[in-house]
Amino acid sequence: MAEKKMVEAITSMEEDFAQWYTDVVKKAELTDYTSVKGCMVIRPAGFAIWERLRNELDKRFKETGVENVYLPMFIPESLLQKEKDHVEGFAPEVAWVTEGGQQPLQDRLCVRPTSETLFCDYYKNTVHSYRDLPQVCNQWCSVVRWEKETRPFLRSREFLWQEGHTAHATAEEAEERTIQMLNVYADFLEEFCAIPVIKGKKTDKEKFAGAEATYTVEALMHDGKALQSGTSHNFGDGFARAFGIQYTDNENKLQYVHQTSWGVTTRLIGAIIMVHGDDSGLVLPPKVAPVQVCIVPIQQKKEGVLAKADEIKEILKGFRVKVDDTDKSPGWKFSEQEMRGIPLRIEVGPKDIEAGKCVVVRRDNKEKIDVSFTELEEKIGEILEKMQSDMLEAARARRDSQTYVATDYEEFKKIFTEKTGFVKAMWCGDQACEDKIKEELSVTSRCMPFEQENISDKCVCCGKPAKKMVYWGKAY
Amino acid sequence: MAEKKMVEAITSMEEDFAQWYTDVVKKAELTDYTSVKGCMVIRPAGFAIWERLRNELDKRFKETGVENVYLPMFIPESLLQKEKDHVEGFAPEVAWVTEGGQQPLQDRLCVRPTSETLFCDYYKNTVHSYRDLPQVCNQWCSVVRWEKETRPFLRSREFLWQEGHTAHATAEEAEERTIQMLNVYADFLEEFCAIPVIKGKKTDKEKFAGAEATYTVEALMHDGKALQSGTSHNFGDGFARAFGIQYTDNENKLQYVHQTSWGVTTRLIGAIIMVHGDDSGLVLPPKVAPVQVCIVPIQQKKEGVLAKADEIKEILKGFRVKVDDTDKSPGWKFSEQEMRGIPLRIEVGPKDIEAGKCVVVRRDNKEKIDVSFTELEEKIGEILEKMQSDMLEAARARRDSQTYVATDYEEFKKIFTEKTGFVKAMWCGDQACEDKIKEELSVTSRCMPFEQENISDKCVCCGKPAKKMVYWGKAY
Repeated sequence: MAEKKMVEAITSMEEDFAQWYTDVVKKAELTDYTSVKGCMVIRPAGFAIWERLRNELDKRFKETGVENVYLPMFIPESLLQKEKDHVEGFAPEVAWVTEGGQQPLQDRLCVRPTSETLFCDYYKNTVHSYRDLPQVCNQWCSVVRWEKETRPFLRSREFLWQEGHTAHATAEEAEERTIQMLNVYADFLEEFCAIPVIKGKKTDKEKFAGAEATYTVEALMHDGKALQSGTSHNFGDGFARAFGIQYTDNENKLQYVHQTSWGVTTRLIGAIIMVHGDDSGLVLPPKVAPVQVCIVPIQQKKEGVLAKADEIKEILKGFRVKVDDTDKSPGWKFSEQEMRGIPLRIEVGPKDIEAGKCVVVRRDNKEKIDVSFTELEEKIGEILEKMQSDMLEAARARRDSQTYVATDYEEFKKIFTEKTGFVKAMWCGDQACEDKIKEELSVTSRCMPFEQENISDKCVCCGKPAKKMVYWGKAY
Repeated sequence: MAEKKMVEAITSMEEDFAQWYTDVVKKAELTDYTSVKGCMVIRPAGFAIWERLRNELDKRFKETGVENVYLPMFIPESLLQKEKDHVEGFAPEVAWVTEGGQQPLQDRLCVRPTSETLFCDYYKNTVHSYRDLPQVCNQWCSVVRWEKETRPFLRSREFLWQEGHTAHATAEEAEERTIQMLNVYADFLEEFCAIPVIKGKKTDKEKFAGAEATYTVEALMHDGKALQSGTSHNFGDGFARAFGIQYTDNENKLQYVHQTSWGVTTRLIGAIIMVHGDDSGLVLPPKVAPVQVCIVPIQQKKEGVLAKADEIKEILKGFRVKVDDTDKSPGWKFSEQEMRGIPLRIEVGPKDIEAGKCVVVRRDNKEKIDVSFTELEEKIGEILEKMQSDMLEAARARRDSQTYVATDYEEFKKIFTEKTGFVKAMWCGDQACEDKIKEELSVTSRCMPFEQENISDKCVCCGKPAKKMVYWGKAY
């Protein structure tokens, strides 16, 4: 029955990218639907990817001094309402608990959509002196936002994420931490997930509810749509003033703290699927892959074949390796390994054993490489490393080929009518232009990149003097 | 300000054990109160302990073939109601979401108190053939139970836990997995947490709502009260019948699956506090401790002292070590290290440096050991190992000294009037006797231990022929 599902072809990307995505998620057994509308089950193959991402990020966070904590999943309505912009941004999409232990609640509780208000409540209790600063906390948890349309990993009513929340003595230190964490995300995405990103600042229209500034890392998917892959917010002292979080400085004067928050979610799995996947299914970068090598014995009933497969596994014990010794056909095993995105397949049969070698097949470009048993450990390491960097370069080349430049509105409109991708264009800084572009073209400003280019002097929309170069795009 | 808090003495155990517990949790900065009634913040020092426990257990789970997943935090009321005993057990203590995205919900959602019903829903979708079995899944998440009285780690409205849920082809295999996971818990508690446990089966009165059999590991706290520290349930095919989870066996016949579930919670942190703690605060077993060694430089402003402390840290890089180089006094640093339960303190000052040694102080018995710099790495390893096993033995000796035997009701009553601890006594198997004992003495049957002893032939309560030897106790 699993066999039947797997050999059915998946929809091709070209034909219907959305259906291709749904097929891959389903057939690689990453998620399942549930009786809970808008929520998903993350199945073992999907969760193993999340564990890899989480453990790597957690390590990188801790290297910068982050400490993990856990705060309640509920926020009393009275607490949520303390910061005006924040509550306006989130109240429409929260879920409310109104009854507990068979009693109606007096102050109803929302299930956290994000935890700024709870961290403020916590810091208010624990931060008193400059000696208590900085506070650099993070939690891995799930949050709830009542989305109308949902898709596995990209948008669901409940999703997993991490949310870092920090409190600092000065505005400078808060800004520094905001950028530091954005860089952690960018480096992680490029070095670990093989996803190149544009780093930049969100416009006021696109920033987080309650933030002074929101920074983002934006990635481009295979279909030319943008995916916001991580954000980092500088709150200034806005939340501190709303919640009364003050400390005495070293001259014994009361000061407000300056805060930040930053997060990435299980969306990252969606990004990996849509940046690297192909018509045979998932393609996982070697560093991400829970299983890096799948050994497929050929004519496995012949003497010595399974033993050799196990021997290879033992030789490769420094990698994440499995032997597929089920009674399925080799062809079926190949397509399953491809669907699941396992980076390397090793084929080994009687003839290979006689020749003292095996065949290594790369998932990304399907290249076949003969490797002698004596060199196996070294070569597999090299091939995995090469595949990791090739995948980043391929993704970067594709993104660059889908990045356009426009200097006037006609050109801008023409590109977005005919193609999908990033368009770099100048902007006057006026939200009215963003609103017009969104309404007419369903295109949003993705970010004002740190690496600015002076494409022209005029706003691509209104023709007035330009202030910033912006990446524009259609987004998930 | 932190300094002021730390030097205040904590209540002594003898005087008021409950207050001692509260003081330790607060002063070791493990948790904080919140504006969310009945919920806690797990602070960095507390969460780091949970991470150590979680990572070790997760490793042990995976060695037995467990795969992690994530299921929704909500359960539709209609789904919760499918298994009769289960809903009766949990409905009174759940929290209900009745509104989402500013709309009332038609089928209200409870926040999961446990996820049997969701796993059944998932297995019903994914298990079809005997080839799909066994399913051995686990998730690390938080759950909600609307408790009236709450205490940090021991009882709170939201807590962190893991819940394993498995589905098997046969009843035998399910029973085997139930016992296997109970043994994982017992070994983990003894080997890692230095907490000796009694393994046994719960009586029908005490078993999990919907289970055929519940097994438990029971530990005894410093005050003689029992703490149920982990449970493992065999559901037989009860849930499978209620949810219609069937598979075709290898003769193409439809069969119901047999299921289990098993879990431990952040209660474990409470157990560690109450088994090992003393009047100076927390005492963490070396394997559990996020920081194993705290180096305190003496006269740290003198030349060479801080450099030596850093050098020692470098020598001990195979351990989890920190140098306390703050400007607090050594005495204050000692009491902080003791309060936080860091297993070893290394004191090093100018005289020590001259003598080529430092002083190592064990947290559990306060023993002071001179160790020369040349032997440091080896000795610290030995001392930590010795401390780990000594802590287990000390806990076992204390438990044994608080375990009593009773053969008739007068004796039984006398013990529970004068003392607190485990009482081993025979039981006829009739729930009426359990009810009477609970009503008269606030004592419950903790378990029917696997290691049975024939203490007498008669039930300690009614005098009728006895069926089982039972551990009785007052419990958290």
